[in-house]
Amino acid sequence: MPELIRPDTLKGFRDVPPGPALAREEMIAAAKAVFRDFGFAPIETPALEYAEVLLGKGGEESDRQTFRFTDQGGRDVAMRFDLTVPFARFAAKHHPQIGLPFRRYQVGTVWRGERPQKGRYREFTQCDFDTIGIDSVAADAETLLVIDALLRRLGVEKFSVRLNSRGLLNGLLANLGLEGRAAATLRVLDKLAKAGREAVLRELTDDVVGSADVAEQVLAIAEIAGPAGEVLPLLAEKAGDEPRAAAAIGRLSEIVDVATAAGVSPARMCLDASIARGLDYYTGVIYETFLDDLPSIGSVCSGGRYDDLAGLFTKQPLPGVGASLGLDRLLAAWEELGRTFEKATPADVLMTVFDDARLADYAAAANRLRGAGIAVEVFPDGRGLGKQLKYANAKKFTLAVVAGPDELAAGRWAVKTLETGDQADVADADLVAAVRERLDRRRPGA
Amino acid sequence: MPELIRPDTLKGFRDVPPGPALAREEMIAAAKAVFRDFGFAPIETPALEYAEVLLGKGGEESDRQTFRFTDQGGRDVAMRFDLTVPFARFAAKHHPQIGLPFRRYQVGTVWRGERPQKGRYREFTQCDFDTIGIDSVAADAETLLVIDALLRRLGVEKFSVRLNSRGLLNGLLANLGLEGRAAATLRVLDKLAKAGREAVLRELTDDVVGSADVAEQVLAIAEIAGPAGEVLPLLAEKAGDEPRAAAAIGRLSEIVDVATAAGVSPARMCLDASIARGLDYYTGVIYETFLDDLPSIGSVCSGGRYDDLAGLFTKQPLPGVGASLGLDRLLAAWEELGRTFEKATPADVLMTVFDDARLADYAAAANRLRGAGIAVEVFPDGRGLGKQLKYANAKKFTLAVVAGPDELAAGRWAVKTLETGDQADVADADLVAAVRERLDRRRPGA
Repeated sequence: MPELIRPDTLKGFRDVPPGPALAREEMIAAAKAVFRDFGFAPIETPALEYAEVLLGKGGEESDRQTFRFTDQGGRDVAMRFDLTVPFARFAAKHHPQIGLPFRRYQVGTVWRGERPQKGRYREFTQCDFDTIGIDSVAADAETLLVIDALLRRLGVEKFSVRLNSRGLLNGLLANLGLEGRAAATLRVLDKLAKAGREAVLRELTDDVVGSADVAEQVLAIAEIAGPAGEVLPLLAEKAGDEPRAAAAIGRLSEIVDVATAAGVSPARMCLDASIARGLDYYTGVIYETFLDDLPSIGSVCSGGRYDDLAGLFTKQPLPGVGASLGLDRLLAAWEELGRTFEKATPADVLMTVFDDARLADYAAAANRLRGAGIAVEVFPDGRGLGKQLKYANAKKFTLAVVAGPDELAAGRWAVKTLETGDQADVADADLVAAVRERLDRRRPGA
Repeated sequence: MPELIRPDTLKGFRDVPPGPALAREEMIAAAKAVFRDFGFAPIETPALEYAEVLLGKGGEESDRQTFRFTDQGGRDVAMRFDLTVPFARFAAKHHPQIGLPFRRYQVGTVWRGERPQKGRYREFTQCDFDTIGIDSVAADAETLLVIDALLRRLGVEKFSVRLNSRGLLNGLLANLGLEGRAAATLRVLDKLAKAGREAVLRELTDDVVGSADVAEQVLAIAEIAGPAGEVLPLLAEKAGDEPRAAAAIGRLSEIVDVATAAGVSPARMCLDASIARGLDYYTGVIYETFLDDLPSIGSVCSGGRYDDLAGLFTKQPLPGVGASLGLDRLLAAWEELGRTFEKATPADVLMTVFDDARLADYAAAANRLRGAGIAVEVFPDGRGLGKQLKYANAKKFTLAVVAGPDELAAGRWAVKTLETGDQADVADADLVAAVRERLDRRRPGA
């Protein structure tokens, strides 16, 4: 007999067992439903592409994080590390047929050979949505509507979307004589939470600004962060006539007004001129989304507006706006907040099999329940009822349906609520209604 | 300006644009709903595994079809070429925690470096479902129920499931003194459709059987194929006391009886002792599924019972039964049968934007429709109405909703049915009801 092969996954990769896999599938289905509600259409692109497409010409730098190899045909290929670059290639190739503006969503696996850390894997899922071919307030505001709808559909009620815009900080800093020093400033402001006000003020003074008074004014801008309706007028005062800041404030106000009219809570839209992330990539509005109960996990949905998606592939300018839902991060947050994924079956009902010879009866009853929209697992043989009920409890079924030869002969079923042990004896004709009633009864508290 | 990169996909790979991507997503969602209805739970496994796990020890042979490389950490890795081997590894690793019996489904991308052909790609999707840890009629019959439910949920009404069993042909051939010649016999029988009866009879006589009389009897067995209820008694006569054939016929009869009781049409279950595919892998019942309108495309859902899933990884015997839905093949069949995927948006309604200054009104009305479960795309700016309606027609929206400044001031909307040009003028308070009514009216003929 040959030696056994160890059933291991690669470092940084993982299996997803039924409990968490069910939660992931439900989240993805919910996200897709929201994207579709807003008219975003799915696309698919290959997992494997020419390395040049993903990394650019001479893109050796990002190599160490990219799974890159020579294929059977001698091609230099790589596994996608995000969905943005493949979408840029897709847009460059297909926009003449597909037409603009174009709204797409894409849910897909990406791979990065990063050093594995807690909650970070070398294989993970991205959920992106973008509107390209247009630069409009409508598309910017809609991105905010989609983020709001996504989080709510996923059952998150306590969250805020932090907004910023590339022009805003640049313009405000220019007013303080700090033209072109946004990047250095942001690097220091980013330490505010960890290092504290004093340390940041000192570092700003010494390393970036050169004056304690100006450093204090910079910090004051960062500290204005808050609900957009309150903060935008204060920032407008500081912006004065500075054209970039004034334009950014005007646009942000329009976005917030449209989103408010469409039902996004004003308290949820926070303006924060010191958001750093993505400022080197995005050219307009920027979105980050934080959970009130766990802000430390970072943004769970981030994005922004860009001038040109696909400049590497086409001369056709493709401006756009979009964001990406951090599915794995949101799941990690839920686990950290104590949510468990114990239910290891998508079915609510286990049809036990008491008597193998009457399999046809059990199968027929199960299919009647399915016909009424109730998911039912039939235990796959007639081993001891005790074992079957133990199995039902372990997998967190809600109900078990039981009938021995006597009950079958009499046309009766026992419907057992597993959590309470409560058991009802019902006639065959009432089985569907009885199961439905017990499942409905349980739902509000589920 | 740097030279542009050509936005090409790799040979054998492809982009999926919105129309077909919508169809694929709907199929996958429908398949998952069926799997869940029967209590199959999802799992996920990595796209990338140790090459030894996927190919076995010294598995150089299958290499040319496998995308295999050395990763950044010097590991010999490969991209999965099916979902069966990863499931075997998963089962070996996790069955003590997950418990047996275990029903899983898995929908995932797999990669094979095959020579690309019409309708065959190097990247495709598999939809597998299996019940492991048990050898029972119940699990065999359920596989048939799931196949039946899958096809019907996918909108296929005209199909048949062909059944066979490893023991059946072996036993029947043994009765004719052809012990151990099943493989050679099947190779010749497989040519029946193409080469015709005479040629097959001659080749059977000359190359396999050695006697025209026995060859005629072999052919007669193959020709018995038909509805299981009619065919099984005829095969039982030929089987006589041969133990393998008799056992196979007994088991097949039970499977068909249970499936019939649970609502599978008896006409749909066809017995065919000459099904060749998978006979070297499967040890019990075998399933193949053919479309009545396009049998030439091959089986769209195939599977069977196996003795031991994970013998390479564990000494724990893991018998099981399962099948795999050929998603890409089914889509190819639909295209061949003339179905088109023209609808390039998941939304039914386009909310046109007549006046950019009133964006908040359009966005708010759209969100009211969404709240009623109607997917709505808001055109992302106020360019000419004619352009917006052209866009709506190109993407195959059902309705367009229009209002200029006068209508908005009067609280009125025009609801336009795009196919007919028919237009209704409705009050703001009636908008949701009017849209709903027009969408419902169209549905039966959609």
